[in-house]
Parts: sequence; C-alpha cells; structure tokens
Amino acid sequence: MKKPAIVMMSDFGIDSGLVSCMHGICKIVDSELEIYDITHVIPAFDIEAASYCLQYTVPYWPSGTIFVSVVDPGVGTSRKACVAKLSNGSYVVTPDNGTLSYLSKMIGIVEVREINEEINRYPETRDVHTFHGRDIFAYCAARLASGAISYEEVGKSYPVEEIVLYELKKAEVGKLYVKAEIQSYDPFGSAELSVLNKEFKYAGFQIGDLLNVKIMEEEKILMEEKIPYEKSFGYVSKGKNVIFNDLASYITIANNEGRFAEKYHLDPEKLYIVEITK
Amino acid sequence: MKKPAIVMMSDFGIDSGLVSCMHGICKIVDSELEIYDITHVIPAFDIEAASYCLQYTVPYWPSGTIFVSVVDPGVGTSRKACVAKLSNGSYVVTPDNGTLSYLSKMIGIVEVREINEEINRYPETRDVHTFHGRDIFAYCAARLASGAISYEEVGKSYPVEEIVLYELKKAEVGKLYVKAEIQSYDPFGSAELSVLNKEFKYAGFQIGDLLNVKIMEEEKILMEEKIPYEKSFGYVSKGKNVIFNDLASYITIANNEGRFAEKYHLDPEKLYIVEITK
Amino acid sequence: MKKPAIVMMSDFGIDSGLVSCMHGICKIVDSELEIYDITHVIPAFDIEAASYCLQYTVPYWPSGTIFVSVVDPGVGTSRKACVAKLSNGSYVVTPDNGTLSYLSKMIGIVEVREINEEINRYPETRDVHTFHGRDIFAYCAARLASGAISYEEVGKSYPVEEIVLYELKKAEVGKLYVKAEIQSYDPFGSAELSVLNKEFKYAGFQIGDLLNVKIMEEEKILMEEKIPYEKSFGYVSKGKNVIFNDLASYITIANNEGRFAEKYHLDPEKLYIVEITK
Repeated sequence: MKKPAIVMMSDFGIDSGLVSCMHGICKIVDSELEIYDITHVIPAFDIEAASYCLQYTVPYWPSGTIFVSVVDPGVGTSRKACVAKLSNGSYVVTPDNGTLSYLSKMIGIVEVREINEEINRYPETRDVHTFHGRDIFAYCAARLASGAISYEEVGKSYPVEEIVLYELKKAEVGKLYVKAEIQSYDPFGSAELSVLNKEFKYAGFQIGDLLNVKIMEEEKILMEEKIPYEKSFGYVSKGKNVIFNDLASYITIANNEGRFAEKYHLDPEKLYIVEITK
Repeated sequence: MKKPAIVMMSDFGIDSGLVSCMHGICKIVDSELEIYDITHVIPAFDIEAASYCLQYTVPYWPSGTIFVSVVDPGVGTSRKACVAKLSNGSYVVTPDNGTLSYLSKMIGIVEVREINEEINRYPETRDVHTFHGRDIFAYCAARLASGAISYEEVGKSYPVEEIVLYELKKAEVGKLYVKAEIQSYDPFGSAELSVLNKEFKYAGFQIGDLLNVKIMEEEKILMEEKIPYEKSFGYVSKGKNVIFNDLASYITIANNEGRFAEKYHLDPEKLYIVEITK
Repeated sequence: MKKPAIVMMSDFGIDSGLVSCMHGICKIVDSELEIYDITHVIPAFDIEAASYCLQYTVPYWPSGTIFVSVVDPGVGTSRKACVAKLSNGSYVVTPDNGTLSYLSKMIGIVEVREINEEINRYPETRDVHTFHGRDIFAYCAARLASGAISYEEVGKSYPVEEIVLYELKKAEVGKLYVKAEIQSYDPFGSAELSVLNKEFKYAGFQIGDLLNVKIMEEEKILMEEKIPYEKSFGYVSKGKNVIFNDLASYITIANNEGRFAEKYHLDPEKLYIVEITK
C-alpha cells in the first residue's frame, strides 16, 4: 500500500536550506516517502497564521496524510512536541502552542500524543537544540509515515482538552444581520470576515442580494456602501466590490481585479469591525 | 506504466495554502500521482506572462505531461475551462483566456475540449465558486493523469480556431536588419527581444559579429552602441553588454554579471523598440 | 532498488520557469526520478552563499543523493562542469568555481570528474549556450541518478587538489578565548560566527556560561555585553540575546523572538570581528 504523503509548513522562509534539511531527513528514514509543502513563508512566529492556513489546506489532502507544521517561538523550551490525530484520519505533527486551534474547531481532534524524544528524535544531532523541525518534527513524521512506528508509539497520549488553543474570532449572527471582524487578507488583498459561509446563510442572506456593508475602526466609519453578494468576484465588473463565499469556508469582501485592502487603506495589524444588513 | 506528472503554474503566490490545496486534490484523486510546479508568482492576472512562461517550459517535460495553468481573472464567469492537447503529446488544463497563445504559435495545439463540470468538478465543494484551480483545473487534470477519464471524457471538443489567442509581438526581419520590441526581462534583468533565434540567423547575423544596437522609447533614443553577438553572456568581460540566443528561443541583450534593465533604467511597463544592424 | 533523489539549488529565482525546465529534463531522462529543491533564491552569482548552504543541507539527505548546484557567473566559459563524489557517498553536480569549498572542508571530496559534454549534454539544444543548468548539470545528474551512466562515465577524473576552493573564514581559538568573524545571517536575523561548535567546546566554554561578547567594526566597538550560552534561543526571555550551537555546526548569536542583526544595525556587506571571553 502507498505510504501517506508528508506535507510541511513553517516560517523558515525559502532562501535557506532549512526546509530541504527537513525533506532530506524524511528520505533518510525512508526513501519511498514523498514530501510536499504548504508554504514556508508563514510570518515569523505567527502561530495564528499557521493555524488558519492548516484549516483550509488539510481537508484537501487524502485521509491519513501527515502534516508537519513548525512555527515554534518556543523551540527548546517546555511546550510539548505532539502529534494530533484529526477526525478525518489525518495527522498533524507540531509544537502544541496554539497551532491546532482552527483545526480543533473546524475538523476536530480525536487524540493527541506527546512525542517521545527517546525514540523519535534523530540520534545523530543530540547536541543541537535549535532545529526541532528537522530533528524531531520531520523525523517523527517520517517514522510514522513509513510505518516504522504506529501512532501509539509516537509517545504518551494526553487529554485533547489540554491542547493549547487560543480563542478564535467569532461573529454575531441575527436575522439579516451579521457583525464580524476582518480576520485575514488573501493573496489578492481581499478581506476575509470572521463569519462562516454557513452562518451567513443562516442569517438569511442569499446569492444575488445587495447588502449594506459598514466597516469601522473603533468608532470611526471607514466605509459604508451597498455591495452585491455573488458566487464569485468575476460576477461584478472590474473595479467593483463584491461579497462571496471564499474557499476557506468564510465570507470575503473583494474588489474584482483590484486589491480591496489597499483601496480602503486597511492595515493587517489593526482591528476592523464589519456590520452587514440587508 | 508510470502515470504522467502534473505540473502546475498560477498567480496565487507562495504565502498561502492555495497551491497546496491544488496538490492535495490530485492526491485525493490518485495517491500515485506526482505533482511538480513551474512557478506560482506569475504577476496577478497576467495572462501574457503565463502564456510566455509555458512556451519555454513545456518542451522540457516528457510528452504526455499534464500542465495546469491558473491565471484566471474571469473565475466564475463565462470563459471556458479547457484542456488543450499539444502537438508534442502533452496537455494543458487552463481557462481559455489567452493562456494558450504562445503554445499555439511555438508548439501547436491539435485538439481542445471544454471541461464537463458535471463529471470533472470536485463534488465536495459545489457551493464554492471561487477556487476553480482546485475544484476544476487540478481535479480534472488529476482524473486525466490517473486514467480515471480518457481525453475524450474531459468534455466536448470545440474548434481550435475558437481558442482565445492574443496577438504576439513580432519582429521586422530584413537582410542584416532586425526591428523588434523588448518583450520581457529574465530574472537577471536581461532584455528579451521579440525576435526568434532562428529569425536572427535568417537575417544573416552570426556568432562573433559586432552589431549596432539602438533602443528607442517612442522617438527618443535611449541607447546606441556596438554590442557583440556571442554564444553566452560569459563570453564578454564583467560589466559588458552582450547579445545571445536565449534559452526560450528568443534573442536577448544582457550585461555580464550586471542587470541590463537597471543599467538603462528600462521600465517593464513601457514599450521599447530595438533596431539591430551590422 | 529505489533510485537516488536529485536535489537542486540555484540563483534562478522562483518567478520564472527556469527551475521547472531543470526538473522536466530529469523526467525526460527517466520518469521514475524524484526531484527536490534546496533553494533557488541564492543571491545572484553568490558562490560563497551556495557553498555554505550545501554544507549544512547535504548531510541531511541519504548517502547517494545527487545534488545539482547552479550558481554560475561563468556559464559558457572555461570553468569546468564537474561531478564531485563526497566522502559520505553523495554527489554534487556543479560548475567547479568555488561551490565545493565548504563541502571540501566539512565533509570531504574523494573524487571529481569533468562532465563529458559529448555524451552528457542534452542533444536537442546544442545551439543554446546559456542554460547549462538544464542542458548539462540537470541532464547529467539525471543520467547518473537513473543509472544510464556510471560515475566513471561522467567524464575524466582530475585531481581533487585542482578543485577551485576559496579560503574560508576561520577563528582564533584559545583557552576561554575566541576571536571570529560574523560569517552569515540566518532567516531570523541571527548572526553566525566563523567558529565551529566543536571549537567553542575546545576553548572551554560550556552551556550555562555567561560570556563577554564584543563586536567590532574595524577599531570601533559596536556592542559589548554579557550574553548567556544556552542550548537554544528559547532559553532566554523574549528580547534577550543568547549564544547557542546552531544547526549548521557554527556558533550563533541571536535575539529571542527578535532580529539580532537589525537590533545592532549589522550590514551583511560589512566585516565584523567578534571576541568572546569568560
């Protein structure tokens, strides 16, 4: 039977050999393993960005895939190195530092085990304490993927309730009313809101509706206008704003062929509240 | 028999999980498939750049390779999603929006089919209309690569004459005379002209010639000097200009170990005419 | 038996199809080959950066892996195209231009052969002299990996003493005294010194020591303070400086969750001397 793919993510950047060291260590464990990547330019130490990115990527890989996520401000300290088993049958090898927050909410974690470094740490580099991505996370993932160890042999399980989770942004949802935050920006500068596509539907909004949208920074109204809710950004003419269901399960506001965030001078560091009514 | 590789290109950038979702969906279709990438930092919505990049990459993959190109300003609108069969036996899965222009000229397209979304769209995401790269292009490519469908089962064929093509830049070629445009810049800042290596040869220029080169912006002469035509940039000393046959079939002007475009303040957004005589 | 992986590195950047052409040519030689990458954003023509990067990546791939490194200011000129066999059993296909310097010191080169272009150059592109990465280095690597040629069939061997090597930065090591240079910066802005972890140990420094560190630019003292020597940067509190054994065998000074180089306005182009005592 085909062994599961290993799929990696980190904040290591792409201008060094760090990622390749993680790939290579997997091949040392088992040359049959295939390694793919999500991204390695997660902003440095940004656990929330890592967590969010996993949430919309993990569901589009086969059940049983083994993900390695290394965004780890606490490398070498007391945070646990763990392998979480998801309800869809896939695994995530990661520092237990909040990276699992979105997956816990959106997919569900059925079991978690702390990596036993006695057996699942690369033995050749015992005097190096600065590259757990290579020496522990990738190495352990490869052992699991190759069948060298079972999931039970990763290490001792601990209660899923003890997994470090941070609170996710939420939305207030009423009848034809949603109040949410901008929670992220996609590569095209579109603003994703903290309201799920299915919550939007529950509020009573329908494709084709023209909606009242208000964006506020604290008390200040930055923008207030009517925006159509369409299937996709291509359904409005160039330069027009549009609301749609995005690929990561959340409602998004975009500007067709433009950059919504730049048009309204939105700063990724700031908090914006968005109210939508009909 | 080994299944063909899938080779992807897009303007999605490398800082999100979008590309990985396209990789993963292929593995969901068939875990034996191998996925490679051309680049995912095509400038946003730049169909011409995508078309050009395919032209010099496709010939260096085995016949039968399945390329997926997703630069798609019109996602969700009426442009066709298609699979083109090239005269070299490879396939390109792409929106029919001009992306096939260079391949049509340089390699040739023997057949084209519109993707039948009833059978070649990922069934789990029917309510999302914003990620055809994952849900249609990658998914259909994987079905074709895996043998789940034949090329005929992609969907109905339509005349190759109906493929959306834009006009490519050309050159005026005479006896020891070429008038062309700068059509692109390579990663080292070298300027590629809209004249093919073979057209240059046809004009009568030979390796070793010292050529008169004039670069004009509208009526203004930006540069006029003698430049040697050599096998490669390494045949002139550091800091010197040189003309050579580039890897993508076009004549290029470069500065050895320097950046030609920056030396002459060439702006990728502007049109420059280049006249070459002996 | 599984064929060895091909692992590539270059200064081609990631915004073109150049790297993909190198991948594809390997697949043309043998569709069973697997191709991975180290990085393709080595600074343009920076042979030292390429050499350094190989040094800490090669040891974490299986013995027998075939590396392709193309940082080649002299493409098309008289520098040799070679395949070096390392003492760990892996191979490096590269221009012989200094790229092998670090590997020669850190791993050892047991044999080197000049590529015979009569048999190990891609025959379809004989009139193109500007893409040895594709036409010679990748093509030859693929032939070797696939078993189409033996190592002897790469071409004639020449004495390892003739390999082009540049002088590496060194350290002065005494009893509880080290004088070294900053030789590079990692992706997090940490400064790596030209003193090996094992030389540091030899000087008598121990994990847990509080060390006197002085950084000088010529005669000027830029910084002088006590910094703890710990297992990893996570062992000091946020914003504090720390010294540790880095993953690439060298001693590093970092700022936990910060960017050491920026904090002290260190310029990658300048030479800094670092003195460490207890």
